[in-house]
Amino acid sequence: MGGTEEAPNGSMAPIGGEIMGPTNPMVTPLLTDLYQYTMAYAYWKTGKHLDRAVFDLYFRKNPFGGEYTVFAGLEECIHFVANFKLTDDEISFLRSAMPTCEEGFFEYLKGVTCSDVEVYAIPEGSVVFPKVPLIRVEGPVAVVQLLETPFVNLVNYASLVTTNAARHRYVSGQNKVLLEFGLRRAQGPDGGISASKYCYIGGFDATSNVLAGKLFGIPLRGTHSHAFVSSYMSADEIPDKTLKSRDGSRNCDDFFSLAQSWLKKVQSVSSLNGLFGETNQSELAAFTSYALAFPNNFLALVDTYDVMRSGLPNFCAVALALNSLGYKASGIRLDSGDLAYLSIEARKIFNLIEKEFRVAGFGKMVITASNDLNEETIDALNKQGHEVDAFGIGTYLVTCYSQAALGCVFKLVEIKDQPRIKLSEDVTKVSIPCKKRIFRLYGKEGYPLVDLMTGEDESMPKEGERILCRHPFIESKRAYVVAQRVEELLKCYWPGRSNEPREELPSLNKIRSRCIKQLEQMRQDHMRRLNPTPYKVSVSAKLYDFIHYLWLNEAPVGELQ
Amino acid sequence: MGGTEEAPNGSMAPIGGEIMGPTNPMVTPLLTDLYQYTMAYAYWKTGKHLDRAVFDLYFRKNPFGGEYTVFAGLEECIHFVANFKLTDDEISFLRSAMPTCEEGFFEYLKGVTCSDVEVYAIPEGSVVFPKVPLIRVEGPVAVVQLLETPFVNLVNYASLVTTNAARHRYVSGQNKVLLEFGLRRAQGPDGGISASKYCYIGGFDATSNVLAGKLFGIPLRGTHSHAFVSSYMSADEIPDKTLKSRDGSRNCDDFFSLAQSWLKKVQSVSSLNGLFGETNQSELAAFTSYALAFPNNFLALVDTYDVMRSGLPNFCAVALALNSLGYKASGIRLDSGDLAYLSIEARKIFNLIEKEFRVAGFGKMVITASNDLNEETIDALNKQGHEVDAFGIGTYLVTCYSQAALGCVFKLVEIKDQPRIKLSEDVTKVSIPCKKRIFRLYGKEGYPLVDLMTGEDESMPKEGERILCRHPFIESKRAYVVAQRVEELLKCYWPGRSNEPREELPSLNKIRSRCIKQLEQMRQDHMRRLNPTPYKVSVSAKLYDFIHYLWLNEAPVGELQ
Repeated sequence: MGGTEEAPNGSMAPIGGEIMGPTNPMVTPLLTDLYQYTMAYAYWKTGKHLDRAVFDLYFRKNPFGGEYTVFAGLEECIHFVANFKLTDDEISFLRSAMPTCEEGFFEYLKGVTCSDVEVYAIPEGSVVFPKVPLIRVEGPVAVVQLLETPFVNLVNYASLVTTNAARHRYVSGQNKVLLEFGLRRAQGPDGGISASKYCYIGGFDATSNVLAGKLFGIPLRGTHSHAFVSSYMSADEIPDKTLKSRDGSRNCDDFFSLAQSWLKKVQSVSSLNGLFGETNQSELAAFTSYALAFPNNFLALVDTYDVMRSGLPNFCAVALALNSLGYKASGIRLDSGDLAYLSIEARKIFNLIEKEFRVAGFGKMVITASNDLNEETIDALNKQGHEVDAFGIGTYLVTCYSQAALGCVFKLVEIKDQPRIKLSEDVTKVSIPCKKRIFRLYGKEGYPLVDLMTGEDESMPKEGERILCRHPFIESKRAYVVAQRVEELLKCYWPGRSNEPREELPSLNKIRSRCIKQLEQMRQDHMRRLNPTPYKVSVSAKLYDFIHYLWLNEAPVGELQ
Repeated sequence: MGGTEEAPNGSMAPIGGEIMGPTNPMVTPLLTDLYQYTMAYAYWKTGKHLDRAVFDLYFRKNPFGGEYTVFAGLEECIHFVANFKLTDDEISFLRSAMPTCEEGFFEYLKGVTCSDVEVYAIPEGSVVFPKVPLIRVEGPVAVVQLLETPFVNLVNYASLVTTNAARHRYVSGQNKVLLEFGLRRAQGPDGGISASKYCYIGGFDATSNVLAGKLFGIPLRGTHSHAFVSSYMSADEIPDKTLKSRDGSRNCDDFFSLAQSWLKKVQSVSSLNGLFGETNQSELAAFTSYALAFPNNFLALVDTYDVMRSGLPNFCAVALALNSLGYKASGIRLDSGDLAYLSIEARKIFNLIEKEFRVAGFGKMVITASNDLNEETIDALNKQGHEVDAFGIGTYLVTCYSQAALGCVFKLVEIKDQPRIKLSEDVTKVSIPCKKRIFRLYGKEGYPLVDLMTGEDESMPKEGERILCRHPFIESKRAYVVAQRVEELLKCYWPGRSNEPREELPSLNKIRSRCIKQLEQMRQDHMRRLNPTPYKVSVSAKLYDFIHYLWLNEAPVGELQ
C-alpha cells in the first residue's frame, strides 16, 4: 500500500534518486485510459489490487513490410516509473471523473508509486522481433495496469520511427548524411520532438528541430527557405555589403559586386558552353545577404527560380567570391525537380569550376536533396545514379507515412504465480504465458540465429550445446541450435523492492551506437527491402509443452451444428 | 526594438492579457527549424528584419481522398503567439548553436515578442478548402518566419485528425456514439492528447484519455480490458460479495451466487433454444467483481473467452442480478470477431430476455464495438447491417493511418507592400500572391457555393450582385455567382499594434458545435465518401489578372535546345 514511501513529485527527491521525469511534462499518471483506473477500483474494491502480476509488452508484426524492428522508448518509460506519483490535483480530478467510487480508493491512489514494481527490458536501441517481450513489468496488478497505456504509448511510436529511420539509413548507405526535417509535418509538437530523438538513434546525423537540439544535444542543421530568397527584391536592400577576408587582412567593400564579377567569369567559362545566361538578380542578392551572415557556412537553396539557369550560377558566383576572400562555401540544397539529374549536373559544374578556377575542393561541394523523400524515392535515386551527399527527410520519415502505427500490446502473462494465456481465434494473437527469460543465440559467424523464450525457472541455455528451439504455435517447426554465444536480453532497469542491481540508462549517443552496431551485425537477408527472410523466434521445449497444456485447458471445445 | 513591452513569460502578465500558453509546455520559440533562426540572423545582419511581410498558411489538397477539410489548431497558435518570448536560457542555447553570430542579434532576440504581429484566421472548426489561407500572418519578416514551423506543426495534425474524426462521424451517422480510444497507439504523448481534443471537435462524443478529460473537459469513457477478465481465476478471489440494492432497502450477501442463479435461469430459457451451455466461471467472477465496483454503470467486455458461449450469458446473468437489486446495466463491448453478426445476435438475446423476464429496456442495452475500426470497416458494417450503438475507434483514427500527414505550408505573399509569388513547375504549387481577403458565397438554398479570394484593397462582394469568380490558374474556368449571403472568413485573432478588435477564442464546445454545424450545411455531394464533388475556390477578376501579370514577370522564358 506504500503510503510511507518518499513522494517523487514536487519538492521531494524522486524514488529513482537521480532519475528525472519524462521529456514531455504531460506524461503523468493521468496520461492513461480511464479503464485502467476503473479496473484499479474494481481490484481495490475486491481486495485484489496487490496481487502480483506479470505483464509483457510486445508487438506482433514488424512494420514497413520488413523483418526487424528497433526497440526504443525505454528511457522515457523508466523516467515515468521512477517519478510515478499522483498529485492531489490529479486525485481530485479522478474523484470527479469516478464519482461513485469510495474515498478509500483515492486514499490508496495517493500512496501509489512504482517502488514495488520491477521492470525488465531489452536495452534501448536493440534490434527486436515479434512476440518477444521488449519490457516485462511485474508488480501489484492495479499499479501495473496503470502503466499499460503510457508504456505502450511511449514505446509504440518511438520504436516505429526509430525503425523507419534505420530503414532510411539502410537504403541511403553509410556514407550519406541524413538530416531529419520533419517537425512541421509531425503529429503534434512532441511527435516532432520524439521523431528528432528517435531518428537520431536510428542513424540520422542531425535535425532541424532546435528544441530537440537543446533537449538531447542532437546536432542541428538548417540554412534558409524559398521565402528568404523571394523576400529580396534587389541588392539595394543590403545597405552594408562589406565583408572582411577570413584571415582579417583584407576588406571587401561591396561583396555583391564581387559576386557579380564572379558571375560574369562563370558565365564566360568556355567549358560551360554558354550554359549560364542572365540569372535572377534578387536571388543573387538573397545569396549575398546569406553569405554575409554566414561566410563560413554558406549553403544555398538553389531552386527558388530555376536551378540550372539561376540558382546554380548564382551560388557558384557567391561561393567563388567567398573563396577569393579565403572562405569555403558548404554547398547547395535542391528541393524540387529531378534530383538525380540536377545533382549530377551540379556536380559536373562544380568539377569544371574547380578545374577552371583552380579552387581545390570545389568539386566536393555538398549537395543536399530534400523534396518529399522516403525509402522508395531514395532507392529510385540510387538506381538512377545521383550525386547527392545529404538527404533531408521530413514527412514520410516522422509520420511513418507508409505505416503510421506499430501495434504494441501489454498482456497479462502471470498473476499470483499462475500463468495466464490470452486466446484468440487468430493464432497470431494468442499470448505466450508465464514470466519468461529471453535469450539471443548467436552462430559461428557472429550473426544472431534465433531468440529463445524460456520459463523463468529454466536453466540458461549453454554455449556449445544443442538447444531445441520450437516455434511457439506450430508443432512441426523446430530446430536444434548450437550457439557460439548466448545473450540474455531482459535486463533489470527498475528493481522495485528486489535486490537486483539496476541497469544504468545509457546516454543518447550510446543508444544510437548500440542501434547502429546491432543493425550491422544482423544477417543481411533479414535486412533487405524486398522479401527479407524472417528471423526466428522460438520457445524452449518445456515452455512449448506448457503453452499447449494451458491452451487446451482454457479453450472451450467447439460445437458445429 | 521592443525591449520595453511587458515580458509574457515568467512572473509578468502575458501580452495577450488573459491568454494562456499552449497546452503542451514544450511548445516554445525553440520548437522551430534552425533555419528560421539563421534566416532571422541574415535579415538582422542586413537590417531587413523589420520589413513587414505577409505569409499565408494553407494546404494544397484535401486529405483522405475527400473534398473537404476541417480547420483546427488555431487556439494553440494564438496561445503561442500571445506568449512568444525567448527566455535567457533559450537565448544561451541559440548562442551556442549559432556561434558565429554577433551578440547584437541575441540582444535583438531577447526583445522579440509578437506585439507587432497581426494574425487573421478562419474560425477554428470551419470547413475549409485547398489554397485558401487558413491563417494570414503579418509582421516583421524575421519574427513571422520564427512562427512558421510551430504554426504549421500546430495546424497540420490538428486539422488532419479533426477531418478524420468528422469523416468517421459522417460514415457512422448522427445517432451513434463515437468514442476515441487512440492514446496507446498515437504518435507520442501529445499525439494522443491532441487527438482526443480534435476528435471531440470533429464530432466524437468521448475519449478514454484521462488527461484529455482533465485538460479539456471532454467526457471520459472506459470499463475494463481482457487482462481484467483473465486476472480472475474464481469467485473465491472476491472475499466480500455483498451488494446493497439500489434503493438501500435490501442487502444481497452473495452477489456471485445471485448471478449464478440468474445464469441458470438464462440457460433454461426455452426461446434461447439451449443456446447457452456452461460458461467460463472465472469470467463470471470478473464480471461480478466489476459489477460490485460499478453497479450503476456495468458495461462488460464479453469476448475474452467466447462471446456467444460465455461472455454474453455471463453478462446477461450479472445484468439480471443487478436488475433484481434495482440497478440497470449499461451494456457490452465486443472487441473481436464478426461485429455485425455478434451485435445482431446479442441484440436478439437482449430482446428475448427483455420479453422472457419482463425487464423493460433490456433489449436497448448498449452494444459497443472496438476492434481496429476505421471508415472502411464502419461502412462495411453498415452495408451488412449491425446492432452496434457505439464505436470505440483508436489506431486508424488518431494516427490518420490512411494518410498520416496534411501538407500545410506557410508562404510569403507580400513584403514591404510588394506582392510575392512562388513559382513552380507544378502549377498546384504556385502560391497566390498578395495580402488577401476571403469571402464565402452562399446560394439560395443556404449551401456555400464558392470561396472567393480578393486583394485587400478590393471592395467586399455584395449580396444579390453578379460576382465573377475565376479559377486562380485556369483561364477558361470562371463563373458568375449571385450570392444570397456573403461571409468574410478571415477574422482578427491577434491584432498586434493595430486597432482591430480581437476575436475571442471560443470554448472547445463552441468550436465543436461550429464544426458540426458547418459540416451539416455543406452540400452532400461534397461530403460523400466516393467521388465527392470538388468545392470551388476562386479569385476575383482583379486578383486573377494580377497573379498572371506577376507570373509572367517572374518566370524565366524557357529555351529548348
